[in-house]
Amino acid sequence: MNTSTIAAVRLIAFTDAVLSAVGLPAADAHLVADSLVQADLWGHQSHGVMRLSWYVARIRAGVVHAVTQPDLIVDAGAVAVLDGKDGVGQVIAAGAAHEALRRAKVHGIGAVAVRNSNHFGTAAYFTRMAPPEGCIGLLTTNASPAMAPWGGRKKIVGNNPWSVAAPAGSHPPMVLDIANTVVARGKVFLARQKGLPIPAGWAISAAGEPTTDPAEALAGIILPMGEHKGYSISVALDVLSGVLTGSGFGTGVHGPYQTEHRSGCGHLMIALNIEAFLPLAEFNARMEKLIAELKSVPLAKGFKEVFYPGEIEARNEERCLREGLCLPEQTLTDLAQLAKETGREALLPF
Amino acid sequence: MNTSTIAAVRLIAFTDAVLSAVGLPAADAHLVADSLVQADLWGHQSHGVMRLSWYVARIRAGVVHAVTQPDLIVDAGAVAVLDGKDGVGQVIAAGAAHEALRRAKVHGIGAVAVRNSNHFGTAAYFTRMAPPEGCIGLLTTNASPAMAPWGGRKKIVGNNPWSVAAPAGSHPPMVLDIANTVVARGKVFLARQKGLPIPAGWAISAAGEPTTDPAEALAGIILPMGEHKGYSISVALDVLSGVLTGSGFGTGVHGPYQTEHRSGCGHLMIALNIEAFLPLAEFNARMEKLIAELKSVPLAKGFKEVFYPGEIEARNEERCLREGLCLPEQTLTDLAQLAKETGREALLPF
Repeated sequence: MNTSTIAAVRLIAFTDAVLSAVGLPAADAHLVADSLVQADLWGHQSHGVMRLSWYVARIRAGVVHAVTQPDLIVDAGAVAVLDGKDGVGQVIAAGAAHEALRRAKVHGIGAVAVRNSNHFGTAAYFTRMAPPEGCIGLLTTNASPAMAPWGGRKKIVGNNPWSVAAPAGSHPPMVLDIANTVVARGKVFLARQKGLPIPAGWAISAAGEPTTDPAEALAGIILPMGEHKGYSISVALDVLSGVLTGSGFGTGVHGPYQTEHRSGCGHLMIALNIEAFLPLAEFNARMEKLIAELKSVPLAKGFKEVFYPGEIEARNEERCLREGLCLPEQTLTDLAQLAKETGREALLPF
Repeated sequence: MNTSTIAAVRLIAFTDAVLSAVGLPAADAHLVADSLVQADLWGHQSHGVMRLSWYVARIRAGVVHAVTQPDLIVDAGAVAVLDGKDGVGQVIAAGAAHEALRRAKVHGIGAVAVRNSNHFGTAAYFTRMAPPEGCIGLLTTNASPAMAPWGGRKKIVGNNPWSVAAPAGSHPPMVLDIANTVVARGKVFLARQKGLPIPAGWAISAAGEPTTDPAEALAGIILPMGEHKGYSISVALDVLSGVLTGSGFGTGVHGPYQTEHRSGCGHLMIALNIEAFLPLAEFNARMEKLIAELKSVPLAKGFKEVFYPGEIEARNEERCLREGLCLPEQTLTDLAQLAKETGREALLPF
């Protein structure tokens, strides 16, 4: 392992210790730490330990309760409603996933609606609990306003991430995990730094006009993917995650970047037990055939390989477990500061 | 009603008669006729009676059986598997929707996996069966290859349409109904006719290079919406619609434009009974609040109104029921030809 990289296991232990210091019970601290470092391992640093300081700030501000004590307010066979009572998003989502999987084993399908939760990191962390159980997992969440309704120029619709994970035979699971904006805000920041225009279709200005100027875009609004399609997907997912669950929806959801508001976000976790539909071995053989077909096509210009959904993350994980994680400077600075504030300097893994 | 327009009720009666002439039982002929004309009423002529001649051709070729006799091969509480046995897609999908809704009423959620079906027209026709029952409907299907895996240059992934429909209080239902390509092929044809370039990001040439030339695009491949996102969504929906259901998947699905192959397509219909999660009246009130919020935003340049998903279709339907339908010349010619072939000239509504 390179000396400038960080071993995942040490980063988990440190993150775990910081979360314990701010009051999370041991099992919960470990779960959140594992989920954050897992996002870093998959190559999604935007959802990794970079977010630790935001989570800590929200716990300290009292808008997230360190001790998560959800109530199962509906417990009705194949379905349930879980009230997260402003606890930690990851702990609530993992509980919902377990409940949905348990119900799927009994009924063939299980659905758990979650209200009053918090940001849970990557949705894939929870849908990926399904494949080892012979299930397909589907998770939707709503999020704070990130896009305008199509044709509008005021942010009131979340980018509302969603994930689907399925076993894939001898391969790591097939995993979809996306938000519904056309591009992450980070890519617009990057274009501004480099002095480059952004492609048409990425953003509108604050005045509601199409723009290729990254500065105007950042002062304006990022567009949904596929124009009205991404808008409609985001609204449909808000209906499933917020309206149906009895949680916040629309502008009633607040993001993890601020400490003033409880989140109000909700989720819907659905699990399908594959054996209820066809033999798991047959499903896995079919998945292997599908993946072989996807990877067999001739390449478009500029590409070296075709990946199936989730394959890049699996490969990143394998490499980062071997070589260690390489975190951005700002994240290292933030973690060092957290170590100092929580008296965990001895565990700082760099 | 304008004399050059066609009354929906007469168009349904004519379509019904043509389908009866090629062997569909009365109830099935009426269902398919209603679903096709409904697509025209919503303004989706690409999925309306324009398709009647293709359906008839496939029935005559024997790749679609005029008499649909599906088998319920798994009947297990909240879930079921329906083998469509190459019957008529609309009849099979409607059966799946009824089964899923019935199971949702008992278990809170119901899922019906469908194998060996056929093109069913618009997915929304079936998800919209859910709102009047106090349910949310979710339907996925796979389709014949329409896009390349992201990074490839060979069509092997369907555009795999999907729909979500939910009650919306005093408003017509909220309906998502999309395919996952960035744009319909028809818009590229239009650009070529007008001699205009297409936007970057719509297509690659046959050689796998990005292109803004509509002729090159038509010889090449339309791209997925949101680049890798639309690709990953389409693959995930193929897993749900094809792999899980025991139907065809990937290149094993054939389209409605040809008469050589049975379709092999599959669907997954999920229904959620809202009352199992929260009172339906509360859900409806929340939907009205969400819609009011969406429609309240200031407008972007070039827009006159913000619509909630499904609102444009509801408005088109209202207008076309009042004013009559206006069909393309080619469709009129095709329908007249069908009338002649099936001895239904007397019912031709124009």
